[in-house]
Amino acid sequence: MQEGFTLWFTGLSGAGKTTVSEMTARALRERGLAVEVLDGDVVRTNICKGLGFSKEDRDENIRRVGYICHWLTEAKGVAAIAAFISPYSEIRAELRARIGRFVEVFVDCPLEVLIERDAKGLYKKALAGKIQNFTGVNDPYEPPLKPEVHLHTDRESPEESAMRVLAKLERLGFVPRRAA
Amino acid sequence: MQEGFTLWFTGLSGAGKTTVSEMTARALRERGLAVEVLDGDVVRTNICKGLGFSKEDRDENIRRVGYICHWLTEAKGVAAIAAFISPYSEIRAELRARIGRFVEVFVDCPLEVLIERDAKGLYKKALAGKIQNFTGVNDPYEPPLKPEVHLHTDRESPEESAMRVLAKLERLGFVPRRAA
Repeated sequence: MQEGFTLWFTGLSGAGKTTVSEMTARALRERGLAVEVLDGDVVRTNICKGLGFSKEDRDENIRRVGYICHWLTEAKGVAAIAAFISPYSEIRAELRARIGRFVEVFVDCPLEVLIERDAKGLYKKALAGKIQNFTGVNDPYEPPLKPEVHLHTDRESPEESAMRVLAKLERLGFVPRRAA
Repeated sequence: MQEGFTLWFTGLSGAGKTTVSEMTARALRERGLAVEVLDGDVVRTNICKGLGFSKEDRDENIRRVGYICHWLTEAKGVAAIAAFISPYSEIRAELRARIGRFVEVFVDCPLEVLIERDAKGLYKKALAGKIQNFTGVNDPYEPPLKPEVHLHTDRESPEESAMRVLAKLERLGFVPRRAA
């Protein structure tokens, strides 16, 4: 059985977590790995139903996802990919300590770029005070200080970002290098 | 996609949870369902590492397994099978409320029969005071009051028990009836 690991994408809304994580998932599947992607929407509406946006609720949300990733990693040998804003560093450190084979990917994009892009119009609403607890605007985001991968999605394409994640997984020995 | 459900086996050590749950898993796979069995040993040594046998730790253990079952049930449409002593009724009720499609199977066997069988010699040790917090001997077990299935493993074979679980799943509409 392959050895599992957890690939954790953290970053602001609109930074590219979903895009890059899905691209990475595809690349890993092409290499024959069993991959499971934890989707924020499914998790929000199902296993974290009723949880809000307070620090406690966000932490509980991430903790639940973490248990699933841990189980997939340890018991199933799966490459578990999670893409969540996960703004608090303490809970991310808790997952790292518990899971062990944990790769943190900081999907970094400057707030001003995100506000300008604003594909879903959420930043506009948040800045106008119509959305409360919107991370980066009126709720904190604690950036990772030592992520395994630090992406800059304002200056690199999703393909480049995914390639960089893959290269890191190879260097860590979590993914076999592709034969030349 | 098939609709998932969680099949929860609860009962004392040695009552037959693992045997009947594995037999049920096999029968469900034969009918083409995607099945995932949560194994107590794997969970104990991995995702619940460091947790002990206090009520709080046992509840936390079951809660973690519950998140995984919930995710398998809702997001993956899997038949999630869990076999744990899970002695406390409150936490089982919590899982039932959260998961919804939750089928509780009480694997019931009188304590005196278990003590007489004592395949692993654990009851002897517990009765001699060499094991602390051993459910049924020196730690409580709260039997389910309204389980979907109440097995009596002192008077029925594992095959009969598994058949009764399967019949219940059919009646609930969670498993299609096998064509005659």
